[in-house]
Formats: sequence, C-alpha cells, structure tokens
Amino acid sequence: MAKWIEAAAYSLATHPDPVLEKQVDRVIGWIKKAQQSDGYLNVHFTVVAPEKRWSNLRDSHELYCAGHLMEAAVAHFRATGKRTLLDVLCRYADYIGRVFGRGKGQKRGYPGHEEIELALVKLYRATGEVRYLDLAKFFVDERGRRPHYYDKESRERGEAPGSYRFGKYDYLQAHLPVREQETAEGHSVRACYLYAGMADVAAETGDRELLKACRKLWKNIVQRRMYIHGGVGSSRFGERFTFDYDLPNEEAYAETCAAIALVFFAHRMLQVEVDGEYADVMERALYNGVISGVSLDGKRFFYDNLLAVHPEVHRFTGQKPPSRQAWFGCACCPPNIARMLSSLGQYVYSTDQRGMYVHLYVNGRAYMDVGNTRVEVEQKTAYPWDEKVRLVVRPEKAATFTLALRVPGWCSAPSLKVNGEAVQVAKHLRKGYVRVPRRWETGDRVELLLPMPPVRMEAHPSVRQDCGRVALQRGPLVYCLEETDNGKDLNDLVLPGDAKLTVKKDRGLFGGTSVIAARVRRRKSWSGKLYRPVESEALVGTMKAIPYFMWANRGEGEMLVWIGSAV
Amino acid sequence: MAKWIEAAAYSLATHPDPVLEKQVDRVIGWIKKAQQSDGYLNVHFTVVAPEKRWSNLRDSHELYCAGHLMEAAVAHFRATGKRTLLDVLCRYADYIGRVFGRGKGQKRGYPGHEEIELALVKLYRATGEVRYLDLAKFFVDERGRRPHYYDKESRERGEAPGSYRFGKYDYLQAHLPVREQETAEGHSVRACYLYAGMADVAAETGDRELLKACRKLWKNIVQRRMYIHGGVGSSRFGERFTFDYDLPNEEAYAETCAAIALVFFAHRMLQVEVDGEYADVMERALYNGVISGVSLDGKRFFYDNLLAVHPEVHRFTGQKPPSRQAWFGCACCPPNIARMLSSLGQYVYSTDQRGMYVHLYVNGRAYMDVGNTRVEVEQKTAYPWDEKVRLVVRPEKAATFTLALRVPGWCSAPSLKVNGEAVQVAKHLRKGYVRVPRRWETGDRVELLLPMPPVRMEAHPSVRQDCGRVALQRGPLVYCLEETDNGKDLNDLVLPGDAKLTVKKDRGLFGGTSVIAARVRRRKSWSGKLYRPVESEALVGTMKAIPYFMWANRGEGEMLVWIGSAV
Repeated sequence: MAKWIEAAAYSLATHPDPVLEKQVDRVIGWIKKAQQSDGYLNVHFTVVAPEKRWSNLRDSHELYCAGHLMEAAVAHFRATGKRTLLDVLCRYADYIGRVFGRGKGQKRGYPGHEEIELALVKLYRATGEVRYLDLAKFFVDERGRRPHYYDKESRERGEAPGSYRFGKYDYLQAHLPVREQETAEGHSVRACYLYAGMADVAAETGDRELLKACRKLWKNIVQRRMYIHGGVGSSRFGERFTFDYDLPNEEAYAETCAAIALVFFAHRMLQVEVDGEYADVMERALYNGVISGVSLDGKRFFYDNLLAVHPEVHRFTGQKPPSRQAWFGCACCPPNIARMLSSLGQYVYSTDQRGMYVHLYVNGRAYMDVGNTRVEVEQKTAYPWDEKVRLVVRPEKAATFTLALRVPGWCSAPSLKVNGEAVQVAKHLRKGYVRVPRRWETGDRVELLLPMPPVRMEAHPSVRQDCGRVALQRGPLVYCLEETDNGKDLNDLVLPGDAKLTVKKDRGLFGGTSVIAARVRRRKSWSGKLYRPVESEALVGTMKAIPYFMWANRGEGEMLVWIGSAV
Repeated sequence: MAKWIEAAAYSLATHPDPVLEKQVDRVIGWIKKAQQSDGYLNVHFTVVAPEKRWSNLRDSHELYCAGHLMEAAVAHFRATGKRTLLDVLCRYADYIGRVFGRGKGQKRGYPGHEEIELALVKLYRATGEVRYLDLAKFFVDERGRRPHYYDKESRERGEAPGSYRFGKYDYLQAHLPVREQETAEGHSVRACYLYAGMADVAAETGDRELLKACRKLWKNIVQRRMYIHGGVGSSRFGERFTFDYDLPNEEAYAETCAAIALVFFAHRMLQVEVDGEYADVMERALYNGVISGVSLDGKRFFYDNLLAVHPEVHRFTGQKPPSRQAWFGCACCPPNIARMLSSLGQYVYSTDQRGMYVHLYVNGRAYMDVGNTRVEVEQKTAYPWDEKVRLVVRPEKAATFTLALRVPGWCSAPSLKVNGEAVQVAKHLRKGYVRVPRRWETGDRVELLLPMPPVRMEAHPSVRQDCGRVALQRGPLVYCLEETDNGKDLNDLVLPGDAKLTVKKDRGLFGGTSVIAARVRRRKSWSGKLYRPVESEALVGTMKAIPYFMWANRGEGEMLVWIGSAV
C-alpha cells in the first residue's frame, strides 16, 4: 500500500487526476486512523501481535514498512503539497526516534530489512528536520556492531542466536559494521537499499569514510556480481549475492526489486559524484533488468529475471515461472516497478553550482534552477531506438553555465553540435560527460549523436557461465534470442566471429522494434546417438535477436542472452 | 550389511581368506537369530515398529532390504557352497510369497524401492525354485496397476494418497504398468534396479512384451538421459531422472549407485541379446561414472559424480562435497562400489550354445564351459592404457566354437590376428562383436588391436549444457581437466578444432597415467571491468587432461569434463 501511494503520488505530479487523488486521500485517511497515540503505526503489531512490537527486528519488516510509508509520505507531499500523510509519518518517525538511540532505555537495534535509512533521509530533505538524518545515521552506524543486537534480541525472545534460519548475519548485511564491509553480501534488495541509504547519509553529512565504504561495495557489485542486464543477487536460495563472478544464467535470480535497488544506489552515488560509471549502470539496469520485470501491456510481472530459459525446467521443477505472472504471494516487485516507472523523471537530470547534467536521454521537457536561473530543457529523441538526441535549452534569461551531457560507456564515437557547430567531444570529456561551458541563450540547440552499432559483449574470464559466449548489445539495450524467432535448442546456435550483425526495424514486432539479425551455424544432421566424435558441420542458418526486456511477451519458449560464439 | 556380505563373498570366491570368511559367518549367525518364526527378517520392523510391518511399502525399504539379503545369500552360497544364509533367505522369500500374491487375503503390493525383483531371480537361479521367479514376475507385473496399491495403502494408514512427498508415483516408477512405461522416470537407482529385474524376468520367461518395454526404456536412457561418464539421474532434487537431454554438469547428480544400477541393467540386456551397445554402455559406466565414486586409495567416496566443479559453489551452498568423503549418512554407495568391484569378473565373459563372448578386456584368467568343453582363457593386456589385447585359448581338448570379441563402439580401426594370421574384422563383425568360428586348439593365440587415439566427443544439440563444448575420450576413458594441472577458470580455456591432442605417459601421476595434452587459447589480459566488447585474443597456453575417474585425488579445485571448443 505504501509503494502504491508513492507510485500514485509520482503519477499525480506529472499527470494530475482528481479521481486518483481522491483514492489516495481515502487510503491516507485509513492510515491516519491506524496510528496509535504514541505515534506507532503498523496494523500487524497493533491488531495481531501487540506484545511483539520491536521484539524481532531481525525477521520482522517493522522498520522496513515504516520506511516505505515515509517514502510515500514525502512523494505525496511533493506531488500535492498536502501534509496529511507527511504529518502522520513525522509523528511515527519521532516516536521511532524515541525508541531507538544510544540513550538510556533506548534500543540500539536496526532493521533486518533495510529501507528506513534512505526513507529518513528523504523525510529530512522534505522537512528540514535534522533529527531524521541523525536517526538514519544511527541505523547505518549501529549495523553489525558487537555485541550483536540480533544475538541480544534473540536471547530476549528465548531463542538461541545461532538458530537464525539464514545462518549468518551476512544475509542481512550485519556481519560487520558497514564501514568495514567490502563485498556485497546476502539478500540483494536489502543490501542495495542499505548502500543507497549509506550514500545518502554520506552525501548529507560529508562522511568520507562512509562514502569510501560505498565506493568499495559499488565496485564489488559492478565489477564482480552484476548481470549484464543490471540484475543482482544471483541465487534464488535466499534471493542473494553469492560469490565473485558467480552469475548463472538459467538458475539466475536477479529479482526485479534488486535491479531497482541498484538503480537507487547508482542514482545516489551519481548525486555525490558525477561519474558516468554510475549512470551507465543505472541505465543498464533501467533499460534491461528492471523493465524486463513487467510485460509490455503492464499487466504481468517477473519476480526473477533469468538470462536463459528452457521451459521444460520449469515444468519439471515447478519452481520458477516460465511466463509472466499476474501477481505474487510476496508482491514486492509489481508496486516497485510502478513507483520506479512513475518517478523516472527524477533520474534524467541533475544540477549543481556549475551547471546542469543530462544523465539519460528521454523524450520530454524539464524545468530546473541552475544557479539563480530557471532553465527549461526539451529533449527530442527516439532513444534508445535512435542514436540522435536533440536538446533545446531555454534559460529564462541568458546565463553562463556548463551543460554536461553523458556519453554512455557503450558509445565509442559520439559527436556533438551546438547550434549546428561541431564540438570536439574528446576534448571536453571528463568522467563520462562532455562538458559545454557557455553563455546559454534561449533556444540554443544541442545535437548529440550516439552511434549504436550492435556489439558483441564478452564477460570476465572468471564468469564461468559465460565463457565461449557473447551477449549482443545495441546502445543501452541487451538483446536475447527467443524460441519463437529461432526455434528450439538455442544453445546450439553459434555466432561466428566474422558474422555481420545487421540491425533491422521489425515493424510488425510490438509496434516497431530494432532487431539484430546474423548468419549463424547450427548442427542439423544428427543420428539417434547422444554422443559422437566431433563432426565438422558448417550448416548455415539465421538468427534474430530482440531486446531482452521484451522477452516472454509472445508465449512460452526457450530464451537465451549469452549466445555460443566461435572466434 | 547385506551388501557388505555380498562383497565379501565375491572376494572370498577369488581370494580365499579364512579370517574374512569367519567374520562373514559370524554376521550370518546374527542374521539367522534375527529371523522370526514365520520367516520374517527385518530388525527395524521386529524391534522398533512391529505394528507397521508391510504397512508402508511405498516409503519403507522393507522389500528392498529383503532383496539385498537375498543377493548376499546367493553370493555367499556360490562362493563358499554353504547354505547357512541361503536357507534363511529361502524361508524369508517363502514367507514373502505367502504375504504377497493375487490370492485371497494376500497383498497385491510391491516395493517402493525396487531391488527384490532381480534378487528373487538370482535366488531362483541358485535354487531352481520356480516360485521365486514367479514372485519376481508378480512384483514386476503389479507395479503401477489401477486401482493403485499405494493409494489403498495410504488410506489404510489414514493418509491422503495425494500427500506423497515426492508428488507423483513416477518417482518410484509406479505411474503406469511397467509394460506401458516408455521413458526412464523418477529415482534413478530404483528405476535401473527395476529395469534390471524386468530384463531378468523377461530372459527367464521369454516374455517378449516385457523385453520390448526394457528395450524402450534402455533406448530412452542411453539416447537421451545418460551422462558421457555413464552416470544417470541428473537432478539431486530426488536423485532422479528429469527430462530428455537435461544433463547439467555442475549441478549434476549421477549417483554412484545409479551408474552401478545401469551396469546391472546393461549386463542383463547383454545376456538376453549380445549387442555391443549394451557392453559399450556397461564399459562407459564402469570405467568412468562408477569408479569415479571411489578414491584411488579405496578409502573415500563420492555419492554424486559431477562433471564440472567450482569449489566456491560448494563452500557457498554447503550442499555437495567438493571433495571425497569417508562415509555418508545414507551409505548406499560405498558398499555398492565394493560389491561391484569384487564381482567384476562376472562381467568379462559370457557363453552360449555357439561359443564364448569377450565383453571386457581385463588382465586375468577364466574358465568356462563352451558346449561340453571346459575352456581356459587367459587375457594379457594393459587395457585401457594400452590398445593391445592378447588372449590365449586353452580348451581341454580341441573344439569347434565361435570366439566373439567385442569391438568397442569408440574404436574405428580394430585389427585382429589369430595365431599371427590377420582376420578381416569388418567381414566378421556383427552387432559390435567380431566373431571367429574355428576349431580351437589349446594354446591358440589371439591378438586384438584397438587403436586409441584421443577423440573429441560432442553431445546431441539438445543437450544445452554441452553445446559449444567437447569432451575428450581415449579408449573407454573420459578425460577431464583439473585446476591443479591447468590453473583456475577452466571454463575460459578453449580447445581449437585444429589443436593436436597428444597422449603422454605421465610417470609421476598416480604411478603412471596416460594424459592428454594440447595447445589451447585462454584470455589473459583483462581490465577491472566485468563486461567489455569482444576483443580478439589468441594467447596460447597448454592444457593437460587426466582420466575423469582419477579426479579429486589431489585436493580440492575446479574440474571440468566438457571443455570449451572452437571449430
């Protein structure tokens, strides 16, 4: 419900709708009524198990739910200007601030499922109340300290600390104080929510040590534990990170929520330091492993985002859906997708003293304050299908500032024109952004060309599941093969190193899609035997790859991202 | 204990040992004392749960244990001539024959874990009592009939039939009457024990319909559901067969007992019809997926026989051992290995009216009756290391019969000499055996040459896990790579199609081992990135493959059977 309010609020901000606004108000009314006189707000612990309030932070989602309500409250406040939900959550946050802390009689606990950390920073930013930032910092800093709060808490419940069902506390990132953590461990959504919160706290407090920990964890994820589609958390046993370079494709997990959480983390880091590496990962996840979580009609979802599928496996084990589902028992992903998509505008631009940054290329119009100047920016582009991006900059009055345009990591030969005049990109490129300092006048035209030839990508030699294989990428989109286009036995398809990759517009496919075609080798003749001495067969067939996020919209079948390759 | 007695008996037959024989006698004494007055013999159901006798055939191993005791009794009788254990088991079998049957008051049940079927045929062969064969046939024929015995039995226990923890009865090959079964389903040891029993019953009764079912099941296994090392049962969830061509390597199961059970099945089929296909599979399993289950010093074991190993996986999940274990909670495999190895002699030869068949090439001496003639055969060979096999045939008096020598399926250019004179193999080859009809005189010399160049094997295009990969085989031995010889990241190693495979004798390795060496490609230069556009790298390294069954005798590390290949 919290994520639904948040999503609805983002939608109201850009698409006012009195009917939806009224629905939201009604739900907020219920929430307000559920709040206890001390400020507490959680119907489970009010109605079902009042005696258990704050008794099991490790396994309950008590603080997690509080966090989501805070995010909803801030979004609703920003969208509508109404304080109805914000006031409720401030009271709740104040109460939580009395319960938790280092003072006498206060609990030194922290959530088993992180989320409230980043939410409290949002609440601080919306209200200006520093105590919310302090509380976020408290939760971040207490995490993983010795003596261990979860041990203490377990004993108080009469349980042996060692009986924790996920084994070690690395499952919830509480095995070490966060500043000492160097690898992304445990449940991947929890982990990335925590890291996002850590980055927020570091950004607001200028805590360089905390920021250093964020950078280490970031590096571990994107250099060793992230799928090419931006998904993280490779094991469905515990929905968790496993070990360096362990990225199984058919047995992947890569929960939709985890890719969203990685976008949160990336976005925070990008606010701290403008570096294309953060935006590249943000884009990679958004255009692939996040939106793969929802069908093209918006009505069916994936909880896990596999990179290889053989339908028989699912029919046999019954463990993972071979097709998108209308809903889930634990329905975290669908509303997370909803709030992600309805808040996309927040990820496109940012500003600082010196100027304006364009992180993503999306058709649309935005208004920002650069220094003291109100600036309208209009983007016209068919990105990611088309490589051309046109911007019109309209400051309310002429002003000097830097317009920094991201040059995606996948793009090797960008070119730029301002009012028709070429700008040398290489000369102005710094940390993934081409920076154009200039006195901007209203109507100035910027043209960015980001050539998007299809590219064969390879994975690090230690990713054993991808050795001898390539993934196709065009611009930010990762491609895949589906059985409906390529027949069965997709793994037997070999893309020769010299096969030309051709991009074609398939007008009949989902209203027009750029597909990648190539000549390939496939074994055709085969007797009844299961094994035989290698025979050379160079039978030629063709393949057609579609953007990964579009898969599973045409029924069940095999799917493959990493394609057999012969150099 | 039953399998231990059986193994000890086989050992006593070839290696008389008064101390061991006395130990066996003592154990048999205990068993005899445990037998109840009605003939029943199972200490669990006598001491622990007497009220539950025969109440849960589906889940208990009651008839299974009876079967193993029968096998032990027959082996003991044949080795020592003593009837001590045989008499006990005949009484038990007679009692079982009174409990089970189609008469009034009898149970129409059958074992949840098959084994007794083939054991009863052994008992019949040892005693000549047809009622044991009939009882075996009864168990085979009742299986999977409607109304379903396990439904009835569940209801009598007050359990809903649908609550069976393995779901459907295909788990124990009781989903259909056995004659209607066409695919190998469920728990792989149970399945192959059943099929072996079916083949035995078909052989003894001449039941062509039953034999037809055996052939279908055989075909399904060896053409679609068997690993290249002869292991079967690809999923550790249920230790079971899955679906056609589903042969994961790192997540393989391939229980040692299942490979042994497949040898049993193959051996039975070979008795029914001499066809090299059966002997090929028997040899494939024996030289690879069976003996891989025991360490070279005979003291440590594998329960499952993986075809690819990354030690971190095991350290992370704790689910499968990365190294051989001294024992298991469910210790079926170690004594199964023991009885298999101590009875190997039974698999080497067979005879029929027309002559003598040599199925396996093993150094040693054997005595057989061919027609009315006693014949001694001596084999001198270093097979499978060496390609030369010499036999000396010594009939007690000159006699005319056919000597049929198996030409393994892996051998493309065999040659044969009798007393120094070349025999045209192709001309005399039928169903995998070169047949030499002749008047054999004592001292006749036979020389068979089975050239063993190392060969790249490929798997059927539908085996998605092996696409783009080759397995190395030399003679009957499947090879593998180990980290200790080749470093980490074995999956990144690419064997070019034109790389020469060289067989070398490594004298320092386990007392002398033929290894396969080749030049390979490996990626060396790599920045910190996880993904990058493909760069062509032709850096050359070398690889060294050792026989698969020898792996994991030099500590933990990566292992790989299916090696990346570039054509």
